[in-house]
Order: sequence, then C-alpha cells, then structure tokens
Amino acid sequence: MKCSPKLRLFSLNSHYTLAKEIADILNVPLGKSSVKHFSDDEIQINIEESVRGCEVYLIQSTSEPANEHIMELLIMIDAMKRASAESINVIIPYYGYARQDRKARAREPITAKLIADLIETAGASRIITLDLHARQIQGFFDLPVDQLMGVPVLAEYFKKKLPTEEVIVVAPDNGGVGRARKMATILDAPIALIDKRRPKPNVSQVMNVIGDVAGKNVILIDDLIDTAGTLISAADALVGRGAEEIYACCTHPVLSGTAVERIESSIIKELVITNSIYLPEEKQINKITSLTIAPLLADAVLRVHNNASVSVLFE
Amino acid sequence: MKCSPKLRLFSLNSHYTLAKEIADILNVPLGKSSVKHFSDDEIQINIEESVRGCEVYLIQSTSEPANEHIMELLIMIDAMKRASAESINVIIPYYGYARQDRKARAREPITAKLIADLIETAGASRIITLDLHARQIQGFFDLPVDQLMGVPVLAEYFKKKLPTEEVIVVAPDNGGVGRARKMATILDAPIALIDKRRPKPNVSQVMNVIGDVAGKNVILIDDLIDTAGTLISAADALVGRGAEEIYACCTHPVLSGTAVERIESSIIKELVITNSIYLPEEKQINKITSLTIAPLLADAVLRVHNNASVSVLFE
Amino acid sequence: MKCSPKLRLFSLNSHYTLAKEIADILNVPLGKSSVKHFSDDEIQINIEESVRGCEVYLIQSTSEPANEHIMELLIMIDAMKRASAESINVIIPYYGYARQDRKARAREPITAKLIADLIETAGASRIITLDLHARQIQGFFDLPVDQLMGVPVLAEYFKKKLPTEEVIVVAPDNGGVGRARKMATILDAPIALIDKRRPKPNVSQVMNVIGDVAGKNVILIDDLIDTAGTLISAADALVGRGAEEIYACCTHPVLSGTAVERIESSIIKELVITNSIYLPEEKQINKITSLTIAPLLADAVLRVHNNASVSVLFE
Amino acid sequence: MKCSPKLRLFSLNSHYTLAKEIADILNVPLGKSSVKHFSDDEIQINIEESVRGCEVYLIQSTSEPANEHIMELLIMIDAMKRASAESINVIIPYYGYARQDRKARAREPITAKLIADLIETAGASRIITLDLHARQIQGFFDLPVDQLMGVPVLAEYFKKKLPTEEVIVVAPDNGGVGRARKMATILDAPIALIDKRRPKPNVSQVMNVIGDVAGKNVILIDDLIDTAGTLISAADALVGRGAEEIYACCTHPVLSGTAVERIESSIIKELVITNSIYLPEEKQINKITSLTIAPLLADAVLRVHNNASVSVLFE
Amino acid sequence: MKCSPKLRLFSLNSHYTLAKEIADILNVPLGKSSVKHFSDDEIQINIEESVRGCEVYLIQSTSEPANEHIMELLIMIDAMKRASAESINVIIPYYGYARQDRKARAREPITAKLIADLIETAGASRIITLDLHARQIQGFFDLPVDQLMGVPVLAEYFKKKLPTEEVIVVAPDNGGVGRARKMATILDAPIALIDKRRPKPNVSQVMNVIGDVAGKNVILIDDLIDTAGTLISAADALVGRGAEEIYACCTHPVLSGTAVERIESSIIKELVITNSIYLPEEKQINKITSLTIAPLLADAVLRVHNNASVSVLFE
Amino acid sequence: MKCSPKLRLFSLNSHYTLAKEIADILNVPLGKSSVKHFSDDEIQINIEESVRGCEVYLIQSTSEPANEHIMELLIMIDAMKRASAESINVIIPYYGYARQDRKARAREPITAKLIADLIETAGASRIITLDLHARQIQGFFDLPVDQLMGVPVLAEYFKKKLPTEEVIVVAPDNGGVGRARKMATILDAPIALIDKRRPKPNVSQVMNVIGDVAGKNVILIDDLIDTAGTLISAADALVGRGAEEIYACCTHPVLSGTAVERIESSIIKELVITNSIYLPEEKQINKITSLTIAPLLADAVLRVHNNASVSVLFE
Repeated sequence: MKCSPKLRLFSLNSHYTLAKEIADILNVPLGKSSVKHFSDDEIQINIEESVRGCEVYLIQSTSEPANEHIMELLIMIDAMKRASAESINVIIPYYGYARQDRKARAREPITAKLIADLIETAGASRIITLDLHARQIQGFFDLPVDQLMGVPVLAEYFKKKLPTEEVIVVAPDNGGVGRARKMATILDAPIALIDKRRPKPNVSQVMNVIGDVAGKNVILIDDLIDTAGTLISAADALVGRGAEEIYACCTHPVLSGTAVERIESSIIKELVITNSIYLPEEKQINKITSLTIAPLLADAVLRVHNNASVSVLFE
Repeated sequence: MKCSPKLRLFSLNSHYTLAKEIADILNVPLGKSSVKHFSDDEIQINIEESVRGCEVYLIQSTSEPANEHIMELLIMIDAMKRASAESINVIIPYYGYARQDRKARAREPITAKLIADLIETAGASRIITLDLHARQIQGFFDLPVDQLMGVPVLAEYFKKKLPTEEVIVVAPDNGGVGRARKMATILDAPIALIDKRRPKPNVSQVMNVIGDVAGKNVILIDDLIDTAGTLISAADALVGRGAEEIYACCTHPVLSGTAVERIESSIIKELVITNSIYLPEEKQINKITSLTIAPLLADAVLRVHNNASVSVLFE
Repeated sequence: MKCSPKLRLFSLNSHYTLAKEIADILNVPLGKSSVKHFSDDEIQINIEESVRGCEVYLIQSTSEPANEHIMELLIMIDAMKRASAESINVIIPYYGYARQDRKARAREPITAKLIADLIETAGASRIITLDLHARQIQGFFDLPVDQLMGVPVLAEYFKKKLPTEEVIVVAPDNGGVGRARKMATILDAPIALIDKRRPKPNVSQVMNVIGDVAGKNVILIDDLIDTAGTLISAADALVGRGAEEIYACCTHPVLSGTAVERIESSIIKELVITNSIYLPEEKQINKITSLTIAPLLADAVLRVHNNASVSVLFE
Repeated sequence: MKCSPKLRLFSLNSHYTLAKEIADILNVPLGKSSVKHFSDDEIQINIEESVRGCEVYLIQSTSEPANEHIMELLIMIDAMKRASAESINVIIPYYGYARQDRKARAREPITAKLIADLIETAGASRIITLDLHARQIQGFFDLPVDQLMGVPVLAEYFKKKLPTEEVIVVAPDNGGVGRARKMATILDAPIALIDKRRPKPNVSQVMNVIGDVAGKNVILIDDLIDTAGTLISAADALVGRGAEEIYACCTHPVLSGTAVERIESSIIKELVITNSIYLPEEKQINKITSLTIAPLLADAVLRVHNNASVSVLFE
Repeated sequence: MKCSPKLRLFSLNSHYTLAKEIADILNVPLGKSSVKHFSDDEIQINIEESVRGCEVYLIQSTSEPANEHIMELLIMIDAMKRASAESINVIIPYYGYARQDRKARAREPITAKLIADLIETAGASRIITLDLHARQIQGFFDLPVDQLMGVPVLAEYFKKKLPTEEVIVVAPDNGGVGRARKMATILDAPIALIDKRRPKPNVSQVMNVIGDVAGKNVILIDDLIDTAGTLISAADALVGRGAEEIYACCTHPVLSGTAVERIESSIIKELVITNSIYLPEEKQINKITSLTIAPLLADAVLRVHNNASVSVLFE
Repeated sequence: MKCSPKLRLFSLNSHYTLAKEIADILNVPLGKSSVKHFSDDEIQINIEESVRGCEVYLIQSTSEPANEHIMELLIMIDAMKRASAESINVIIPYYGYARQDRKARAREPITAKLIADLIETAGASRIITLDLHARQIQGFFDLPVDQLMGVPVLAEYFKKKLPTEEVIVVAPDNGGVGRARKMATILDAPIALIDKRRPKPNVSQVMNVIGDVAGKNVILIDDLIDTAGTLISAADALVGRGAEEIYACCTHPVLSGTAVERIESSIIKELVITNSIYLPEEKQINKITSLTIAPLLADAVLRVHNNASVSVLFE
C-alpha cells in the first residue's frame, strides 16, 4: 500500500551495534544488506530485499576510516536511488571532516561542504545528525537536516553524578565556549576557558586558564576528542590553577592514535562519551563511560516517519 | 582584444563612496550605470556601456535595507550575465543576513545560505568579502570566495594608539573569542570573555566577566555591532570589574536603531570601525573612528585581475 | 497519517486580509507564523507549528514594496523546505516585476525570469497565480504553474452593470488588445485600441484612437494600472472622440504614487479592480470598486489538494 | 594561440545557403562537417576538423521539419562540447515552436521553453536569433540571447518602394499590433488592426477592420506567415473596407502546406520576406521578394567575436 | 484520493498496438490524448483528461523516425509535468540512438547519453526499457531504470521449437558474445562467433567463423537487426562452414531500408523478433515470427505501481 | 598574463613516479603540494603555490585503495576550484570501479557513474583517461573526456617480440572480444575466445576454447587483470587445446591479492602491462614487463594545452 510507505532501516559498516540498538527500540528488523569488498578493495553492495517505494533510513557514521565510510554511504545511496526507494534518509551520528568547514588558510578545501554536496549528488533525501562541529554545516545542505543534541545526554549524566555547586564547565579552546555555556546552563554552573597561546614563534604553547577554577570540579567539554593532546594539556593547566577533579566529556569519541593510552595515564578522572562512533573493545577502558544515543535517534526516526515534530529533540 | 579582458568596476547603491575610493586607487573609472526605482518601487537597472567580454566587479554591501540591496545585486548580476560579461565578480564588503547561518531553533530558515544560493543562481562568478560572521559561510558558496580580514586593520590602529602592555582584548560573547584571540595575538595581549547568563527564568541577564580585566585598558571586539545593547552592558560590566578605559571596535558598523545615540552616551571611550557599511553623516559622531578598507579591496581586485595570489590578504 | 497530507495555509505580509478570506472559505485556520524584522530590518521568520509532511500553501503578492515581499517569500520557502514540508505551493495573486519580462533595450535584466529562478532555487513546488502580465511568464518556471483568470470576474461585473449593446472595450496600448478581445467576447461587444505615438522626437505623444467609439460607453481594460497616466490620457482621448461614459478596470491595482488622486480627479467614472493587491484604506475611494478573487483562489487550492482539474478555472 | 580563440562557422542542414553567405561576408570558410542519416534515419554527425579551444558558431533554423532540425542541432552541440570547443554559439535565424510559448489551454506543453532547456542541456553557450514570436522567449534561456531585428530590414524596403503618405500598416491579429507600430514608426505611417471575431458559436469568423484604411496602400506585417489563411482573409477584408493595394511582409516565411499557392492566387500584390528560413525553389514565385539577413547575422558574429556591443543591432 | 495515485497509461505515436495490448492486460483504458502535427509539422499535443496527481505511464519506442518520436516524447513529458502529474514513468521498449553510446572516433557525439539527459530535463521520473544495446546506458540516467530482458522470451520460443542438442548459438559480431552466451545457457547449447575482418585495406571484409558449427542448427542472435547486411553475410559464412538450418532472432526489429526483402531472399529460415518496434504490415512476411512483450511490460507496470520487486523480470 | 594560462601539473598519492615521468617529458616541475592524513586518517591537502588562473592537471589513478584515492582526488579538486584555478583537468590513467558500470543484478549501484557524478560535482573541467573498461563510461560524464588507447602500446611490444604468423590473440571472456580484435588487427593475426560456462548448477566452470589455437603462440589480452584467476584457467585451457607459449597482457595491472604469486607459478610465460597503476616493488617480478604510458599522457597534456587535436592519440 502506497499511503504508508514501509520504513526500512539499514546499517552500513561503521557502527552495526548502534544500528541494531535503534532497530530494537523501534521493534523493526534491520534490512538485509551487506557492504563487502572485492579482492582489490572496491566496495561491493548487496541489498537483499526490495526497497521499492520504501522510506529508507541508512545509519552510518563517517568516522575513521572516514574515506571508506563515506564511499560506502555514497554507493549505498546510489543503489537505493536506482532501486526506487521513495526516500533515502541518512542518519550520520558522527559527521566526519566537519573540522574542514572553512578555508582557514590559502588554497584549503572546504571538505565538510564537499561531502554534503556529494551526499546530495548521490541522491539522499534528508540528513539526521548529532552535534555538528559547527552548526553552520546544516547550511551546507539544501536538504532538510535534523540536528539532534548530545550535550543534554552528557549533562544529565553529570547532573546525577556531581553536586553542581562545586562544578565549573570549561571549554578547552576558543571555539567551544558556546557548548560549555549550554552544558553550564543545564547544570546551573559557571564556565571558564582555556586560551592556548604561543607567546613567541618557536616558543612552546601556553595554556592560559581564563576564569577562576580553584577548588572546583571541572567538566571539560568538547564536541569531539581526537588525539586528546589539547585536552590533557588543558587538564594539567587546570590542576595547576587549583582545580580539584577533572572530568572530560564529548559527544564524538574520535580518539585517534594513542589518545586512549594518553587519557588512561592522564590526570583526567573520567571521560564521558556517547556511542556516536563505534569504540573498539581495546579502547573501552574503565575511565571511559559511554552513554547511548540510540533512544534519541530512534525517537527521531519515529517522529520523521510519523510526520511529528522533531524540534523537541534539538532545542 | 580577448586576451586581457577589460576590468570594469560598478557601484550599486549601498556604498558609492567606497566604490569610488576603490576605483580611484585602481585608477579606473566607475562603470556607467544606475540603479533607480520605478514609481511602484521596482528596481530599474541601466548599464550604459558595453560589458561584453569584460571582467566585471560589482560593489555592494548587503547592509540595511538588506532586502533592497540584495535584490539590486541579483538583478544587476542577471543584467550583466545577459549582457555577456565574461566574469561577474561580486565584492560584498558586508555580507548581511550572516547571523542567520544555522537553524538555531525549530523551523528557522538558513538565510545566509539562501542568499548564497540566490547569488549563484543569478550568475555570479566569484565573491570577495570581508570578515564573515562565521567563516563557514565561505562553504555556502560553490564559487571561489576570497574572504579578506578586517581585524588586522583594526589591530594596527590600536597598536599605534595604546601601549599594548596595558591592554586586554575582550570578546563580548561566546562566539567571538576566536576573533579576540586573533587581535590579541597581533597586539601581544591577553584576552577575557563576557559570559552572558540568565541565572533563572524571569530573572534579568547577568554579564559575567571571565578573566582578569582590573587596571587594564579594554578593547572590546566584535565582527559587527548592531543595536550596541550587549556591547554597552559589557562595557559597564568591565568597568564594574575594574577595567580602565573601554575601547570598542568592529569591522561592520551595522549600528541600527538608536545604537549611535546609545554609544554616544555610554562609557565607551572610542568605537573604531571600518567603512564596510556606509555610515550616514548623522551617525558620524566624534566617538566613532572609521578606517577605510578600500586599499585592501583594491589590492584584492588587482590580484584577482592579474591572477596573483590573494591569500596574503587573508592570512 | 501520511496518505492525506495536511493542508496548511500561511499568510505572509503583503495581503493578510485576502489570505484570511481564503482560509475562511476553506474553513481552515491560517497557519501560525510571523514575518517580522530585526532592528536592522533583516527579515525574521517564525513558524510556530510543525509543517513536517504537510502540503503548505503560502499566500504572497509581490506587490509594493516588491523587494521586501519577494525576500519574505524566498526566506519563508527556505524555512518551510528545511522544516520538511512535503510540498510548498506558492500563491502569488499579483506577480510583481512582470513587466521586466524581456530585454527591451541593451543590457536590461529579465527580472521576471530571475524571480522565477529564485523561487525555484528557494524550493517551491508549484505556483498559483492570476493574470500574468505576459502569459509567457508561465514558461519562466519549470514548476507547474496554474494561472487563474481575473478578466471573467471583471466582465461579470460589467455584464450586470451596463447594457452591452452600448459598450465598447478599449485596450489602452498595443500589448493589451488580446485582453480587450477576451472581455469583449464575454460581453459580446466590439473593441478599439489606443495607439500612443510620438509624431517626431521632442514632440509630445499623441493618443490616437483606432476604432469607432462615438456614442459608446467605454470599458478600458488593462492587466494592471500603475501610475494611471496612460489610462487617464486614454480616457481623455476617447471622450475627445465622442465616447460617452468611461469605465476602467484591471486585475492588479498597483496604483503607485499619486495614481489614486489622479483617477479621482479624472473623467473616469468608475475603476473596477480585484483585491489581488492590498489596497490601503486611504486609497479606497468611492470611484474604485473592488471585487474579491478569494473564492477563485480558494477553489484552486481545493482542487489542487484533491487532485481535481484546475483547468476549468483558467479557460 | 589561446588568447584569440579561432572563430569557426558550421552550417547544419536547415539553411546551407544562408550559412555560406554569412561565411563569405566574414571571409572565413565554413567548417568541414556533415550531418547525414543512417539507414534507419538516425542522425550521423561528422566534424572533420579539430574545434578544440575554438569559438564555434552553429547556424541552424529550427524550421520545417522542426523536429529533425532541433535534433540535429542538439546532437551537434553535444559533439562540439565533447570535442572541447571553447564556446558554442548557436545562431537560430528562425526559432521554431515559438508559438507554443505559454499554456493557452489545459495540459498544454510550453514547447518553446522546453526547446530552450534542451539547448542549454546539450551545452550551448549563447543564442543569436531574430524576431522571436514573443520577446519573452529570451527569458526562457539563462544564456545570453542576442535577438536581432528583422523589421527594419523589411521597413527599409518599403520606404524605398512606397510613398509613405499613402501607406497604413496593419496588424493581422491582436498580438501583432506592437510589431505594426514599430514598422509604422519607421515609415511615419498610421496603423490599423484586424480583429478576428466569431459572433456566435457555429457562425463563421468575421474579420473586423479596426481603423480607417480607405484609400490607403496597406502593409500587412507579421513575424511569420504559416498557412497564410488569416493573412488572405485579412487582405480581403481590407479591400472590402476600401484599401488600395495590399502588401504583406514577415520575417519568417514558414509558408507551410499550400500557402504559396494561396498567396499566388490572392489579391496580395507582393509578399516581402527575409531568408531566415530556406525557401525551396518551387516556392520562389514572382510575388515573393526575399531580403537577406546575412549581413545582419555576419555583423553580429563579428561583434560577438570582438566583444563589441551588439545592442546597436537590436534597438 | 491521494493515497493511491491513479495509474494512467498513455500511448504516443510510435506503437499504439503495443500500448493497447498492455492496457488490455492491465484492464485499464488508454488515456485520452493525441499527438498530431500542425500544418508546418510542429507537434501538437492534446491531453484530454486530467492527470493531476496521477502516476502516468507513457509508452513510446524511439524507433524510426527516431527524431520525431523523441520530440513527441519530450513534449509530452513537458505537458504532463506542467499538468501536475505526480510521476511520469516512461516506457521505452526500443531505445533508439543506443548505438551512439561512446566516442568511437574523434568529435563524435554520445547521442545515447544526450537523449537520456534530454528526457531527464523534460521531467521524467523513471524509465522502463528492454534490452539496451549496451547495459551501461542505464548509467546514462540518474533516474531509476528498470531494464527488462527480451532474450528469455526469444529463448523460450526456440526451446520449444528446436531440439537443443543440435543447436549452436552464434553471435554475429564481437560485441554480442555475451548475449549469445545468455541464450545458450537457457538452451544449454554451445556458442560460436563471427569475426568480421578486413585482411588488408581495400580488400573486402571476410567473415570468419570462430567455433565449430558443422552439422548444427544455428541461432544467430543480436539485440537489434538494422540493415540485415551483416546478418545475411554471417548466415552465408555459417552455411559455408557446414551449418544446417540458420535461424535468426533479435529483440528489436529495426529492419530499415530493404532489410526485409533481403531477409526474404536469404538462406535464413526464420527470423524471430519481438514487437518492441511496430512492424508495418508490408514488412510482416511469413519468415518473420513476432513474439509479444506486452505481458512483460504490463507486469512491470503493475509491479512498479504496487511497489513490488521488478528485479524478477530482469535477472 | 591571462592569455596563456600557466600549465601546472600536480601529483596526488596514487602514482608519483608516473606523474614525475610526465613532468620530466614536458620539462615542467610538479606543482608543490602534499596529500597527507590527520591522526584520525582524514585527508589533509596542502597546495603550496598559487594556482589562480592556472590550467591545472591532476594526476591520479583511482587504483587500490580506490576509496582513498577517489576522496583524495575529490578534495583536491575542491581545493583547486576554491583556489580559483582556471581549469581543472583530471588525468585518471586507471579509472577504478569501472566494472560497476551497469545494474547486473537487482539493487546494484552503478558506481562508475556515481564516481563520474562526484568528480563533476567537485568541479573538474575535463577528464583524460586510458582504456576504460567499457567505452560507454565516457558518456557517464558531461565533461569532455579524452580516452587514450593502451592497446597499441602493448601491440607494438609484441610486434617486435613475436613472429606474427605464429600468433593468435585470445579474449579471456565474452566481453573482451572487441579488444582482442583490435590487437589482432595491428598484429595481422587471428583471434579466439574463451567461453566460460557452468554446465549445470553446482558443477565447476568449464573453459571452452572457441577457435583453433593448436600450434600457435597465444596472446591473452584484457583491459585489466585483477585476481588473475580467470586468466590462469584460460592459459591452462589453451595449452590443453594445443597452444604453444602463452603470453598475457593488459593495460591496467590491478593484480590484487595473490595475483602476482599465481602468475609467477603459472604456465604464462610473460605478462606485459603498462604503468597506469603503480606496481609496488615486491610485485615487480621478472615475468612481468611494464611499458610506460608517460609519453602518451604527456603528449595528450601538451595537445590539450595547445588546443591541438588529441584524436590522433585515441584512434
């Protein structure tokens, strides 16, 4: 029957467990498909059930290896389009390349825009995503973009865990003050800021703490943590300025290279993350607490499918 | 002769004096054209010389009245395209609607992206602009965008005026810390931050100063100043925290409503601006110092025309 | 329920009373939204109810101030698109800039086409409009355009008012003979034509009457009346050629500048218009009779919503 | 050498003699190419010289058989694009399907717009054309369109031939009054109009003459003459109203079916046309005088090639 | 009712009988429409019933005269789009110009791609076709393309007719071996290949038979037969190599020029075709057996309409 | 100087040695740029010299790892576009994903078309490539594609090496007969064909040799060799049918997995390849002879730069 197109959820390779969790909450099976590789590593898509006239949801974080995951997504969208899906809704819990969102220096690409253009060219109908590095990335798409918020999930956790009167939320760099303010408002806490600064050329960077953190438990918040270098320097600087315990959190645990080892051995007491990116078992250390965003994404899918307002999820 | 297409500069209505200044620096006449209105207020474009095969530069800030100025620009681009200009380079010293660059709440437009799409649809070839509210707006275009920097122009002024050891650069809100850092680096000065916060619903906003401003001369910096409300509250809060003299600066003097009157009667000692937006005579008060960006824009035009690197102007 | 998407009517700022009238006929409420301005006059859209999956109708004449009304419309369409409306149907009772529909002289824009391109770029799905200045403007869109006819509404009025045997329909210029013929056919009346002609350069224009109007009551018909200059000269010329009473009518009462005052003091006995453009109270003089097109537009909305044929409304 | 791209003129099949005439005036050879047909009538293009980096001009009227000529043109443009021509300028002396320029009745195509879209899709860079049926067709293109004027060519002929004081210019239908006015202005003559009207259903059409033609030599003018039915009825009606000699003229001699035979046996004394459409020898009767537009088109090519103003040719 | 859009089938001019056959199988009437020509041969479309909101299927082979049939199709799509059809599904049993699918020599067009672009530009939603000359042509479209298979229809016929142990399937040229293999697999038969080769320039072509055909009944298979020249030479060569009876088959009976006469007088015993192209009565000779693809196409329409999987029809 | 835009050659990461070889032949330096990776493996492009107004050539085979190489290319094109390169010419010696050029089974993507769309979306101006798997892939682009031929390079080698009277060229599968014919024509040799066939389900595939190879030296030719499985089975079958020495050749040495080891231990005497794909040292075994295509590509660049005909290189 055409009048209520069938909802079909498909997982690509970046994060099967999150997709499964969403499917379970929605009580629908994951669509039968596979994304494999030929001998020469080219991607081979198999969609093993008809999607003709269906409202399809693809779940894929464009996390490491980003290029692989982006190409998987683009090829899957192409296959779905040519297989006559009615709409192709792309759930991108972690939108990779988001930091390349402007020309910071001469002759740089704006890869975050390029990826948006590629996704539209391939044939997507809608994007559902979470905590974009810059909210302006919504505008890189001409498609409807529903950007959900991970900060409240993180904030709820700390609200229960820490007495808020002893807490200060700290942004680890200039660009993150708004995010810190958002969490601080939920926790009714003050904020501070790390101001990285190189006094002179060829002199090492200094981490100034702007704001008073003495005697406070600190929550360092960022949208993503990559190498964790800045984060750990920030933690050290904060302790140097009299902070008590240092907590860190982020929506997107990129945690590349030796980030996990460095966090393990740092003075950071706990790192709270979401499962927007799949964290391989060897990176799941005790210091890291992972909160699930599956209920948030499942709710978004349901609201989109039923034409209910999604805005309650991102305000 | 085709091999060096003639450069043609045209002013639209938003800022004739800036266009004239650029033309004088380049030692070329402004193109003969007019943008008038019919009796019912529809725009009437007249281009009174051939532009066939020319490299055209249009100069228009999309400042107040923004809608009028945007439509003027779009219609002029259409006319130039249909008149067989070889390329249509659009100089937008102030890019209006830039604050509508993301969906901040449900069902908001992303007008800054829409305007970019409209300009591309009309037929522009390239954008030259200055200090976009968010640098991500570059990515709203698929055209080459050369974004020039007004901050160094402002910084040079203060470098000469104030002994830098007594200066602190302050961002008036969360989003502007990066800009403050950039100026502070040129001046070799520290930074602080105003953290606007509403302690409880229905309680008036508090301006927290994060960082230590006592005994310092403050330079408040923003990309644009609109109603000046936040700016003046920030100035008051800074003085309340022991700051000495308060200077303010911005690239784009939007200065809408009673902004100028409010600045006049505020404790701000001097407001330094650029002429990216035309400031009508009645707003040119003594407290306001205007620096010209015409040499910067003229240099950019010349470099584009000669295929020389423009990046030196935006790094 | 997806299978009958909810119909939602929204008024923009150009003509709230017409929108309300249509909503009342259809017995649906107008959607909750507002189009306001920030302090610097940039447009601020608020859509206060979900439109996800809805069949949206926007009502906006691009009448004076045309640029303001066009930008309102474009921004609203962008907001609706990003808010996941299923379709965005744009009702433009008066399509402004329609007279700029060709290059009449060198280096002119074709603004009527540009506006069409802008509306498509913003994301509209369909256009419903009335008596375009030139019917070719339908072809400026790649979207479906339903062009309704105002002439029959005007003709019905005169049919009741005047004995048709004494009537002659007159076109006030070369381009309007087809329209005069259409009304004349409904009234079963003959036609005549005003031939404006400048005998020599620097000699004032002459209004020749082509056809015999002596002893007849004249109905001057045009698609729009702007400054009313030509109309009144035509009326004078007709009386000079022996015409009895002079009636005038048009679909679109642009009536810019002092048009209403001039009509008031002219020999024109009555001007019959439709409410495709909002006529402010001070322009509602006794000589002007306004007929409503709300039932026509409401009928079109209903037919589009129910997939019934609309062609009966435009033939 | 790149800096002055080579000009290359190519004729397609609709009008080789006109193309040759243009080439001779410009003193350049026609490009080596052929447009043939395979056994099953599919078009086979051969371009026998390199066009890489060249400024190509294609000459093709989309006259009868229009579909054949349109497809030839589209395929040739595709071949030129893929062969790396720098620009593809399309000269369409007669733009066929121009009368299908609006939805006159329900569910009609707007073929004149479709053709414009097809030409743009295929890859054209610019259009040069002559006396479009409706000038709004310029706006169907987003490319630059240079529309040249055939009316002055026709007017010059009559200026020399007939004493203008005895002449009246007559439009054969409602839509052509503007064109008649344009010629009348050049000749300093008055105008009249034929008003076709069917008094009642199932009663035959009446040709009313509006304006006074008694004792005058009439020049009937149209943009094109197709079956000549209306023209000849008009001529008869004019004579019935006391006109002396009847001359007819048009830019585009479509002359389909038995048009030439009917003109031969009509009371029309002379039909003056241009060679925008190839007239086969059997249609070249004594009554028909053909004026060449090759100098006009050659001048346009030269001006485009040299980036000189073309507007002098269309005002 | 919106939730199951009405299915509407329309025949264009290339093959009314096939369209009627499909309509009869589906038990729906053919839509009321006509495709006629004006006096000057321009196409005149009439759609005599509302298609607003309907799921429209257009049936048109782009067979000889291809240009006529392509233009009919494009204009009809434009009319349907402007008449607000919900989707425009184009059934092209024979896709003409398919052999121009690559640049085989310098400066050739890729007409098969151009046609695809034109169809998309006009506004089609989906393509249903049969045995494309090269399957890569699917990729010329960004729309969903359902390519059905005619080879099984042909194979079924031969399976019943000939004892398969005595059969060999032969490809008449290099490009057709894959098709021969497909049929051979259904029939469980071996294959052979004709290798056309010109030993030296100016020496006539030789038809080498690669593989052993002696004593076998041959089925020569091609996707289309045009002039039949190669086919008949192949048949002669096969008999020269000891083959018994020669059967030929193809999906698309182009049969241009004197192809039918040549087949009649050849040693080919029977030619089996489908009715993807209309075969005029004078070409329906006894030697030619035509199999209908109407059930296959009707099944595809039904599956598309009901969102059932179509893939069963093309694997 | 604008009139001869500077030629700039840039290598991406897939094949630096080929790029260097081309640059050396052209006697120009390779552009200064790097393509590195951030810690999380996202691609980081640096272009270290101005390309404003330049004619840029990017050299990148989309060989294994294809997804990495494709993303590198897309991001580089984006960077070049935003850096105001005049034209971006992309040299793709090996076009990966070319085998996914059609929907072979239900719900397959057409990745070769998708990649073409992505490259166009990113902003490329022209493609130069070599021996596409299917020549129809040229039509996947709307850009000019210059497809060069590797077969003659391979043929020249064998012409010198083997007495042609003892040679037969063999296609290893159905799709490659045309390529075999092309080489055979240069060598004036006959052809044969391997017909892979599975007699019954669950029975292993049989390699039939069609044509007579006894006593001949065989040249097996393919456009690419991937796992070499088919190739080696073909070689065995040929020897089983009496062939003497077995040579193999291909343009594109994909050689994935254990292909090289298998070739080493096979009865194939020599494998001749081109350097369209970088062959790592460990794969450069004695049995493999690599011919360079750098002169061919360099010649193409020069011809494009000088607007000379390229067709001599692909016919």
